[in-house]
Amino acid sequence: MTVDIRTPLRHLLSLEGLSAETLNGLMDRAQEFVDGKYLYQPLQGVGVCTLFFEPSTRTRLSFQLAAQQLGAEVLNFEAANSSTTKGETAADTFRNIEAMGVRGFVIRHREDGCAQALANIAGPQTAIINAGDGCSNHPTQGLLDMLTLRQAKGHDFSGMRIALVGDIAHSRVARSDLHALRALGATDVRICGPRTLLPMDDAILDGFTVTHDLDAALDGVDAVMMLRLQRERMEEGLVESLKDYHEQYGLTAKRLAYARPDAVVLHPGPINRGVEITDEVADGPQALILRQVANGVAMRSAVMEALLTKPLAVH
Amino acid sequence: MTVDIRTPLRHLLSLEGLSAETLNGLMDRAQEFVDGKYLYQPLQGVGVCTLFFEPSTRTRLSFQLAAQQLGAEVLNFEAANSSTTKGETAADTFRNIEAMGVRGFVIRHREDGCAQALANIAGPQTAIINAGDGCSNHPTQGLLDMLTLRQAKGHDFSGMRIALVGDIAHSRVARSDLHALRALGATDVRICGPRTLLPMDDAILDGFTVTHDLDAALDGVDAVMMLRLQRERMEEGLVESLKDYHEQYGLTAKRLAYARPDAVVLHPGPINRGVEITDEVADGPQALILRQVANGVAMRSAVMEALLTKPLAVH
Amino acid sequence: MTVDIRTPLRHLLSLEGLSAETLNGLMDRAQEFVDGKYLYQPLQGVGVCTLFFEPSTRTRLSFQLAAQQLGAEVLNFEAANSSTTKGETAADTFRNIEAMGVRGFVIRHREDGCAQALANIAGPQTAIINAGDGCSNHPTQGLLDMLTLRQAKGHDFSGMRIALVGDIAHSRVARSDLHALRALGATDVRICGPRTLLPMDDAILDGFTVTHDLDAALDGVDAVMMLRLQRERMEEGLVESLKDYHEQYGLTAKRLAYARPDAVVLHPGPINRGVEITDEVADGPQALILRQVANGVAMRSAVMEALLTKPLAVH
Repeated sequence: MTVDIRTPLRHLLSLEGLSAETLNGLMDRAQEFVDGKYLYQPLQGVGVCTLFFEPSTRTRLSFQLAAQQLGAEVLNFEAANSSTTKGETAADTFRNIEAMGVRGFVIRHREDGCAQALANIAGPQTAIINAGDGCSNHPTQGLLDMLTLRQAKGHDFSGMRIALVGDIAHSRVARSDLHALRALGATDVRICGPRTLLPMDDAILDGFTVTHDLDAALDGVDAVMMLRLQRERMEEGLVESLKDYHEQYGLTAKRLAYARPDAVVLHPGPINRGVEITDEVADGPQALILRQVANGVAMRSAVMEALLTKPLAVH
Repeated sequence: MTVDIRTPLRHLLSLEGLSAETLNGLMDRAQEFVDGKYLYQPLQGVGVCTLFFEPSTRTRLSFQLAAQQLGAEVLNFEAANSSTTKGETAADTFRNIEAMGVRGFVIRHREDGCAQALANIAGPQTAIINAGDGCSNHPTQGLLDMLTLRQAKGHDFSGMRIALVGDIAHSRVARSDLHALRALGATDVRICGPRTLLPMDDAILDGFTVTHDLDAALDGVDAVMMLRLQRERMEEGLVESLKDYHEQYGLTAKRLAYARPDAVVLHPGPINRGVEITDEVADGPQALILRQVANGVAMRSAVMEALLTKPLAVH
Repeated sequence: MTVDIRTPLRHLLSLEGLSAETLNGLMDRAQEFVDGKYLYQPLQGVGVCTLFFEPSTRTRLSFQLAAQQLGAEVLNFEAANSSTTKGETAADTFRNIEAMGVRGFVIRHREDGCAQALANIAGPQTAIINAGDGCSNHPTQGLLDMLTLRQAKGHDFSGMRIALVGDIAHSRVARSDLHALRALGATDVRICGPRTLLPMDDAILDGFTVTHDLDAALDGVDAVMMLRLQRERMEEGLVESLKDYHEQYGLTAKRLAYARPDAVVLHPGPINRGVEITDEVADGPQALILRQVANGVAMRSAVMEALLTKPLAVH
């Protein structure tokens, strides 16, 4: 059953280029974990290191829990508290921990391409999981979002109407979601945000709708995927004020009424209450935000199992 | 044997209102852990998160060790290193980690009522343990203090003479001790400290003796429970100087001679040597300070077992 | 087999005074771990605390992994995040965690003698491992360096020609290496560095060669052991500039040609690329830097097993 999902994946750096079959295989396995089927601990004796050059406690905890539930030994490394302050490069830090015998690395970094760069120098036994780098990729977030949509709206993405709203330009979540939605066959995807926060000439938008009008984007959709607004967008002059942003792009109960009555709302967290989403919506019956979190642990377990266990014949 | 202690407790937020039976049940079980009876790991597969919005490494380690010895998966979350810096509320952080499947939460917070507030929104499978909030409650410290007294002076608290000395007004330890002493039947409790550090109109003092004279408070007691003097009391003008405080309220060997020869000395730690207690007393034969620490791990194991294991019939 | 190595060691504070038999016994056991013989988990239920008063993430991770692979419960304590900020002494912090039932302590401290001081007050069940203090001792680094040499050049140290290059005066690694090399019978050891970074009147140099000429030191050696140059040596005026230091004492491919063609290069890490060593050498075929890291985990497992397990007859 699980053999086919292991075959193609050595690392998980991006969802770009992954087939629907691979994505669905990982989601099927994660669903088994959601359903409570942790029947064994395949990663006993395997070292997994969360190597975070940018702080993100919740993402780290999610990966840590996923790894521990599979029986792995988890090491946490945060750059701020580490010898990178002694001037060591990320590559040397990685090579060093790899040399200790650690086989799985969960990488978070401010800069695009860091996970790929480490994968390029990784040994044959090592698997890299990108836990978010720069504005490019956050593949496990994309996967858990798809799993959440699938649970709510079924396995056929081709008929789904989806709005993706907010700071698309700087969002690694948006990019990973869009790669996955395309691979899974979604066609009615409306990408919505202010002009300053939309990428202009990005192939990732091809075939999808781009709009600056939130009401139009929400019209009749099955799912609204909200993005987090980073406060630094204000300092950079890309957004005038939080109040202004909320008025134009904040998801309120009134606005959500444009969507289908059974539409669901996703958000990768942490949420800025009163900015991109109101309390009423975030805590309302259509929000799946905490289900996303629960799916996150299961999805990360599925990914680590796929990358770090050998086919049984090898044992 | 252990069934009766589980019944009433869903969370452990305060010792206020707990019966002598409940307190003694928890202490009986902790005593078994002290005696080395960790025969099984009832929390295998259970996630426990230490969620500390105020740093306290020693308290965290004690809970972590207690949970690990029961087989739990422990996650540590310190607010200073976390996404609460991204503006997320304590409630959202809690809900998020709860959604990951974590069932036990050990909460530390500067503000009164935080543990209660999180208990109010917790799901039915979740148990909250207050590891100290504001000036109000630190229930496991109260329990471990009672266990330490019981080991030294027997199970009958009604005949015990006890002095509680120091910054009562700001001490969550003092409040938890007083709730427990009252429930266990202690009547001769002398509460001693400078006027500026005693609560004036607090029901918690009812029936106990309040005095500003340390020598009188110590006269013939079986146990002296010292409190830590926080340095910020100086900045707030509540204490003139450390030297001054030590002269009036510091426990010296000379002063301890007012107590019974077999009197014991407790302190929740970390101690300010030369301020509220001298080296001679802190390291002397009457001090039980390190036994309190040892009891702390056992007590916390007993509490977590009580809150997080199901009655056997459910299995 | 392993009985004899356990007998003499209560703590591991320094390599000074340890016999060749003890050193080889520990190395033999570490080699078994390198060869994958983690057949059992002898430290199950044993608490091990990394108590670091100076940050060193990689050393901490190495000890943590070594302890976890033996089945220990590992607690990490970093002074910067801890109650030592509340004014508690290192001794009180240690006694406190010891009272929680933790039996193994891995100590790192800026000041010479800290590990010894804690060993002096440790209880009979407690073992202290010095993970580096001041400029004096880093015994597990010395041991892993010897293991790495032994793997590359055989068990007979008496015929080995070895250059030890860099900031000898401030290096705890150098001291531990020199103690071990002497005990294992090495005689042709050339100690090389600028006048400002060589200890003048130290018995540790007795019988070894001291030189300020790197080319002479490297002539025909079997192994080059490089040391890290701490940046603060510049601020202290002991080194003029990094460029200057590199020109005189940096190991380049050109300079390495003075050594034997099969000479190996060691460095304790983290490396200052382009200062004490060039990329070409650090990443070249003669460098064993990552093998040192791998040996480190095995060596620390061997040490913890030796200190924390009882002879079988006791069980």
